[in-house]
Amino acid sequence: MADQNTVESKPEQSLPERPKDAPADEAGAAGAEGDKGPSKSALKKAAKEKEKAEKAAKRKAAEEAQKKQQEGSDVSREDYGDLPMIGSLEYKPSGVKRVTLAQIAEKYNETTPFDEAGGVDVCFRAVVENARNQSAKLSFLVFRETLNTIQAVVAASDTLSRQMVKFAGSINAESIVLVHGLVKKTPEPVKSATISHLEIHVKKIYVVAKADSQLPMQVQDAERPLPLEGEEAKEDESGRPIVTLNTRLNNRVIDLRGKHNRAIFAIKDGVTALFQEFLRGHGFIGIQTPKLLGAPSEGGANVFEVGYFATKAFLAQSPQLYKQMLIASRFERVMEVGPVFRAENSNTARHLTEFTGLDLEMAFEEDYHEVVEVLENLMLYIFNGLRTKYKRETDLVRSIYHVDEFKLPEAGNVPRIPFSEGIQMLRDDGLEIGDYDDLSTPDEKRLGALVLKKYGSDFYVLDQFPLNIRPFYTMPSHTAPAHTEGAKDPNAGYSNSYDFFMRGQEILSGAQRIHDADFLCKRMKEHVTPCDPNSDGLRDYVNAFRYGCPPHAGGGIGLERIVMLWLGLPNVRLASLFPRDPNRVMP
Amino acid sequence: MADQNTVESKPEQSLPERPKDAPADEAGAAGAEGDKGPSKSALKKAAKEKEKAEKAAKRKAAEEAQKKQQEGSDVSREDYGDLPMIGSLEYKPSGVKRVTLAQIAEKYNETTPFDEAGGVDVCFRAVVENARNQSAKLSFLVFRETLNTIQAVVAASDTLSRQMVKFAGSINAESIVLVHGLVKKTPEPVKSATISHLEIHVKKIYVVAKADSQLPMQVQDAERPLPLEGEEAKEDESGRPIVTLNTRLNNRVIDLRGKHNRAIFAIKDGVTALFQEFLRGHGFIGIQTPKLLGAPSEGGANVFEVGYFATKAFLAQSPQLYKQMLIASRFERVMEVGPVFRAENSNTARHLTEFTGLDLEMAFEEDYHEVVEVLENLMLYIFNGLRTKYKRETDLVRSIYHVDEFKLPEAGNVPRIPFSEGIQMLRDDGLEIGDYDDLSTPDEKRLGALVLKKYGSDFYVLDQFPLNIRPFYTMPSHTAPAHTEGAKDPNAGYSNSYDFFMRGQEILSGAQRIHDADFLCKRMKEHVTPCDPNSDGLRDYVNAFRYGCPPHAGGGIGLERIVMLWLGLPNVRLASLFPRDPNRVMP
Repeated sequence: MADQNTVESKPEQSLPERPKDAPADEAGAAGAEGDKGPSKSALKKAAKEKEKAEKAAKRKAAEEAQKKQQEGSDVSREDYGDLPMIGSLEYKPSGVKRVTLAQIAEKYNETTPFDEAGGVDVCFRAVVENARNQSAKLSFLVFRETLNTIQAVVAASDTLSRQMVKFAGSINAESIVLVHGLVKKTPEPVKSATISHLEIHVKKIYVVAKADSQLPMQVQDAERPLPLEGEEAKEDESGRPIVTLNTRLNNRVIDLRGKHNRAIFAIKDGVTALFQEFLRGHGFIGIQTPKLLGAPSEGGANVFEVGYFATKAFLAQSPQLYKQMLIASRFERVMEVGPVFRAENSNTARHLTEFTGLDLEMAFEEDYHEVVEVLENLMLYIFNGLRTKYKRETDLVRSIYHVDEFKLPEAGNVPRIPFSEGIQMLRDDGLEIGDYDDLSTPDEKRLGALVLKKYGSDFYVLDQFPLNIRPFYTMPSHTAPAHTEGAKDPNAGYSNSYDFFMRGQEILSGAQRIHDADFLCKRMKEHVTPCDPNSDGLRDYVNAFRYGCPPHAGGGIGLERIVMLWLGLPNVRLASLFPRDPNRVMP
Repeated sequence: MADQNTVESKPEQSLPERPKDAPADEAGAAGAEGDKGPSKSALKKAAKEKEKAEKAAKRKAAEEAQKKQQEGSDVSREDYGDLPMIGSLEYKPSGVKRVTLAQIAEKYNETTPFDEAGGVDVCFRAVVENARNQSAKLSFLVFRETLNTIQAVVAASDTLSRQMVKFAGSINAESIVLVHGLVKKTPEPVKSATISHLEIHVKKIYVVAKADSQLPMQVQDAERPLPLEGEEAKEDESGRPIVTLNTRLNNRVIDLRGKHNRAIFAIKDGVTALFQEFLRGHGFIGIQTPKLLGAPSEGGANVFEVGYFATKAFLAQSPQLYKQMLIASRFERVMEVGPVFRAENSNTARHLTEFTGLDLEMAFEEDYHEVVEVLENLMLYIFNGLRTKYKRETDLVRSIYHVDEFKLPEAGNVPRIPFSEGIQMLRDDGLEIGDYDDLSTPDEKRLGALVLKKYGSDFYVLDQFPLNIRPFYTMPSHTAPAHTEGAKDPNAGYSNSYDFFMRGQEILSGAQRIHDADFLCKRMKEHVTPCDPNSDGLRDYVNAFRYGCPPHAGGGIGLERIVMLWLGLPNVRLASLFPRDPNRVMP
């Protein structure tokens, strides 16, 4: 809504007049007639369309004639109808201030008295969630705006014609309307609307943008839960068939209209805003690292190749090397919110080929746990921000998926568990696992349950991962053989690295990085997947550490994962506006 | 610097001891010896490297022996030297609080009295900007930290050895050091340092990370201005050769260390933060639209093709279609900060193949100028934010490029000039130009100068551009023939579109978009570059408007352009951390 909006509506001065001669949906008909047939193959189609349009035009002409005759006896004829497309007529300010449903709900709340009998004049634009003709003299509508809905009645009277009642009750769901009406208290709460104590008595109603009568799916379909992973529900509790995820994603524009989707993406933006807010307040500077790289740098697999003029380029799998180079450039503390690309052919509920990385890197003074502490505080800041500022959205989504409250550690003491202790907890629980084995997803979830039981927290840190399962740039622990010349197994032992978990699933991965060029070269060569420090993709990176670079550590967070795990969504795709996976790049 | 830092430094308790037996740069030598020779072609090289390393090891052993002998008689032997790589030894907290140069400058400022004679103990990590041995008993260093520099003296005394003086004065520039010393007032201002009223009397100095003695370029080289477009300076006023842009970008990690670069990217992040702050405060939600698209959607040229598993994908040239689809999804007000990709083979000072788009889109009520007003207020908010919060950074960069103050309109009245009036202004100035011609870059700059003269503002809006030079989704003016069925020239006339300018160069382009599917199809077919509404890349987009979509408008802003024009930089590459153009995808 425009800035100058207030809840008061002025006396109506100069409403946009519906031109009598120009049919309101003229633009629609023009679509076919204005066709010049840009290609030969389209000519046949165009001819058909023309024929169709001519038929439609005839039909419309007849309807128009009938309508005009009726209008003669219609006291409400100026008070309803289809508006001409906004922008197609000269703009004449109406002078009527518009309000939002949220403003209405806030101002005329259950405790504030207002003129209940007469009602209060308001004007607003909203979506028609549904409309029905109760009788020839009475129609009901439900209007929607973001998370709010309100009921409206259109009742025939001396000043409101039956034609108008019929028009209002016949508006296609999902159409956009402009409404003038009176806000009144309802005799009893309206269960079907979120603003249940008020209703709108419609005085005028105009269609701003018409929706087709047949939509490929219904918004209500979008608002029902998907089956959880492993489940295979075909209908919900009330027996209605569940629209599959595939259908929803194919019709994402309608799917996203569901209230829970509004909530999911409000929360997603909230996480981003809280991330930036916290870090800017702690001296981090926002950066944009390149997504087009001249060579694959973080392992050749899983990278998308791009045609780049006469040569080729590759899509960045993370800002890792660049954010470190910026530490070497004296930036001290950097953060980035941006897309990352993974050409991994994984078709699971947890993988996307394009997602949003929340990345950060910082120089530290004496020990990498200074960075771990910043990261822990960052995550607690985000969780607490979500709990307070996005409670309504969180509750709305969790109510659909019946998810437990997310348990935060008491007094901010995040469990920081050495990897070796995590292994011991799993062994004590009966799992057979080696000291330096990577944790499988089920193992991680099992450990998550054990940690929740022991520490009472859904959020925790595993510290000191085995060196052999971390990238080449990871700083080995001071106890690791890698620090000794001529070590038998330079990949043995632990590393100064950590993962952060929510409900037993990883959301953040990070480490102290090697800031010494010679040691970095050594590690690149002896790593389990060796790489060449002189290769095109790594030369500049390695050299950066020859120019004097402070010790530093950082981490990368998967934004969609945080949203998924905070809300308990069954699929990470639900946390992406237009998700990409190996089989989907549209819409 | 870590959160808990204060300016006070506690009595030193347990400084990390330099282990006598482990040479500090052990890790460096290990690089070659740990080499396993991952490929045959590298074997010869490895052999050479080994020989080199052995020689170096011998040399070092001799040096070590000499050093040990000297240390016996060195009273300062615990107070200087190379620290072991942080992370390679067990962490023992020093208990010494570290401060920043900024905190020192703020606390001990020119008006606050402090113990000038005795000085105040501080400990900090900093970069050595330069170091020199004045005599056997005296060395001078300059330390740098972001935009601040401070001078330091190391003077021999009963408790500070000549060996330490020599060590300190010989530290390679750009090395990172840990310093313990006394802050004292200087007898007279130090011209070579930004903190000119204070200096550090060094008591201890350790090298945290050594820089190579020979760097590919000097940081001072980066701090001199590039020649402006068209100029061809080979040396600056003092006669030093100017390092070319190409060399700077090839060594971007060093180049970015220049203070002006710190300032440029602080300002860049400032623009982003101000953009998000203003829009979040006005009900906008941050979004992430996909960068990988299943089909090229905004014209087939200038788009990068990506190998996508068995098929292909394309990199988004803008979030245009997706942000509109989100308006159709009821998001009302959306914004995005993200990379955009243009495969345009333009090698100018104004083009990049990857840059950062600040995009927004919003539904409006009656007229698209509601959106223009939000955009104007947004830009004024950004400019005023830069003027107040980033004054130091702005002045620093502008002083290098001798750029005039950016003139803002008085009382926030942004000149909003109809395109036709702009054409008339140019004609009155002697230019021959048609009513509906697009403006060339020189024309735009000429108009910028005319507008500055007439309105006293470097910031202005051109409104109502000719329809035939705007994209297919642009809403034609109400006067445009496109709204009439069977119009002779449906691309004639004007459109509800606008560009925003800074110093005569476009920074924002936007318009009211067509929100009616049938009219959109008509325009797609009759556009000067027709496109097919049923094509893979456009079908979902067109359909979005069949489901009821409110009138909306928006714009896209080039972040790097704002930074360039605000500061008067001669090349847009200077506003990108790692710029991409047709000839550059590295580093």
